Amino acid sequence: MNKRSLEQCETPALILDEAKMERNIARMQSKLRSLDVAFRPHAKTNKCIDVTRRLMQTPEGPLTVSTLREADYFAEHGVKDILYAVCIAPNKLDHVIALRQKGVKLTIILDSLDAAQMVVDRARASQQDFDVMIEIDSDGHRSGVQPDAPELTEIGLLLHAAGVNVAGVLTHAGSSYDCNTTDQIRERAEQERIAVVGSAERLRAVGIPCPVVSVGSTPTALFAEHLDGVTEVRTGVFVFFDLVMAGLDVCRVEEIALSVLGTVIGHQNDKGWTIIDAGWMAMSRDRGTARQPVDQGYGVVCDVDGQPLEDFILIGANQEHGIIAHRSGSGSTVPHLKVGTQVRILPNHACSTAAQYGHYNVLGRDHEITAAWQRFSGW
Amino acid sequence: MNKRSLEQCETPALILDEAKMERNIARMQSKLRSLDVAFRPHAKTNKCIDVTRRLMQTPEGPLTVSTLREADYFAEHGVKDILYAVCIAPNKLDHVIALRQKGVKLTIILDSLDAAQMVVDRARASQQDFDVMIEIDSDGHRSGVQPDAPELTEIGLLLHAAGVNVAGVLTHAGSSYDCNTTDQIRERAEQERIAVVGSAERLRAVGIPCPVVSVGSTPTALFAEHLDGVTEVRTGVFVFFDLVMAGLDVCRVEEIALSVLGTVIGHQNDKGWTIIDAGWMAMSRDRGTARQPVDQGYGVVCDVDGQPLEDFILIGANQEHGIIAHRSGSGSTVPHLKVGTQVRILPNHACSTAAQYGHYNVLGRDHEITAAWQRFSGW
Repeated sequence: MNKRSLEQCETPALILDEAKMERNIARMQSKLRSLDVAFRPHAKTNKCIDVTRRLMQTPEGPLTVSTLREADYFAEHGVKDILYAVCIAPNKLDHVIALRQKGVKLTIILDSLDAAQMVVDRARASQQDFDVMIEIDSDGHRSGVQPDAPELTEIGLLLHAAGVNVAGVLTHAGSSYDCNTTDQIRERAEQERIAVVGSAERLRAVGIPCPVVSVGSTPTALFAEHLDGVTEVRTGVFVFFDLVMAGLDVCRVEEIALSVLGTVIGHQNDKGWTIIDAGWMAMSRDRGTARQPVDQGYGVVCDVDGQPLEDFILIGANQEHGIIAHRSGSGSTVPHLKVGTQVRILPNHACSTAAQYGHYNVLGRDHEITAAWQRFSGW
Repeated sequence: MNKRSLEQCETPALILDEAKMERNIARMQSKLRSLDVAFRPHAKTNKCIDVTRRLMQTPEGPLTVSTLREADYFAEHGVKDILYAVCIAPNKLDHVIALRQKGVKLTIILDSLDAAQMVVDRARASQQDFDVMIEIDSDGHRSGVQPDAPELTEIGLLLHAAGVNVAGVLTHAGSSYDCNTTDQIRERAEQERIAVVGSAERLRAVGIPCPVVSVGSTPTALFAEHLDGVTEVRTGVFVFFDLVMAGLDVCRVEEIALSVLGTVIGHQNDKGWTIIDAGWMAMSRDRGTARQPVDQGYGVVCDVDGQPLEDFILIGANQEHGIIAHRSGSGSTVPHLKVGTQVRILPNHACSTAAQYGHYNVLGRDHEITAAWQRFSGW
């Protein structure tokens, strides 16, 4: 495509600052090298081959996905080693088999005897092999077997005895998103490591090799002091970062690579409001910073060059309307952002904001849009 | 497509109950006939030609849209009379001109002298006509000129003197979504009517014909006692309804036509949690009922036939995980929804949940999926 300036973009539009993204990727890769673990990046944030190719160790993977639609798409783009990191539902096993028959080493996960029995039954009935990992609950935030539960070895033995490959154990320290300090994140990283390494040891003690020991969350990966016993890390949101990560001190606001370009379309002067054409459809409804010490509303308002306008915040959103106001307590006068002025809004949560768009407008070092990278949504 | 049962669907999937949708459409059309106003349905909720054709009075419109992407799509499907009901940004005027040159009667809106001047300048520079409506603020919730502000007639006269067609005035009583009783909704409907009819009269008093007087919100349209002086109504969410509308007593929960089909993938028995494969990506992050008397979490849980399971609620959501729990205060024991069981979740907000999907799975009267209706997203 021909290069064009931001001013030539119809709004709203999703802007990806390539240089910031590259620095974020380099930071994660460097950290994981220092921890001496393999990287199986998570594609759920970006859902785009152009971004994912920059993350993966080889064009064939390894890769983590959150949907089988992602597995289909990346398989079509040559990725061969894929972990589908959401516990399997029986209605997806035919799809899993179809992908494996195309030559994809697709690993599935589960955390219950019921699901393990279904996989065993399907493996027998269809004469298919499956690669299975067992999800471990390291922090009580969602899914997974407790590391000390009898069910862990029961699941492992049920699968192993039936000839289903138990590839390993994995966990996700989602509670790290609720930390208040980086010291707390460091503690969660150690808790995550202990839970999954201990689980692998329990499985090995009953004769299941359990080669892969996998952890994954951007905060814990970047703050872990060591990952002894862990073999791979799965992270995704680091590639763009967002206001939730900045609120956790995992990144600085200036490192957020993703923003939404919007345009001023009106004002309510008596209220001090500036109305823009980026509402919740453009930002998503995600208000992840609402539970952090600094609530960033629907997003931090920047000028078109990406410099934060410190006194402004996107306080409200209708479907296609965003409302910019002064931060509470500010003594400023009515903002002087004229109709037609472009602004860039930094998102609460990169995964949910990116999901609202069909492509990234890639912003090059010369502050021009240099490419449109397609992304996909759905299942 | 061949008919298939819900049990044959991969999950999550968006389900549209066709019979419920048809009853919702009939209700709105009947109400608007009794009010003796034209109907310019809003496509922003459904973004699908198969749904929109069932709403419009003719295959050529009239229609309301929230983005120019919608205008493009519906124009490609033969719609000729389209109102783009978000205040225009200058970077969109070339797109507007392109659509008009294709034969679409595309009306734009604005609410400021600055925007009016930009439209006048562009009309002169490009030798193009524009049809413009002036947005009126009837309730202080978002955009629009105050009905009694000097700017209203100044905008009208600026456009009119330059030969730009002032097609009329419009408003949206968005604050009706925050009412507590249907009596309050009735009052908001009258407030909405008075604001826009009075604005039209002020414009006519200075010599601007102002033929169209347009209102639009599902609650006010369904509860207005009369719409004297109003010529058209724009509503959209009524076609599906949702939990926010049910919380307002605008519809009953049983009338909600849209649901998300999910599957149980695990449990945390000590917490009483059931984990499903429909998280916030499947439901959206919209928590519209959080500010209503009954907070419905991320959605009301139903069985696969759509019958609410009264004791359950989707209390939490990660990207691809939903957490079902007992409603607060319930003395029930751990839910017995086995791994593999399908559930249907009614959404907080139809507009935001539908936006997460590429198609509707249309559920026919025989409880089978009879069609896949494509929908689109983005700008």
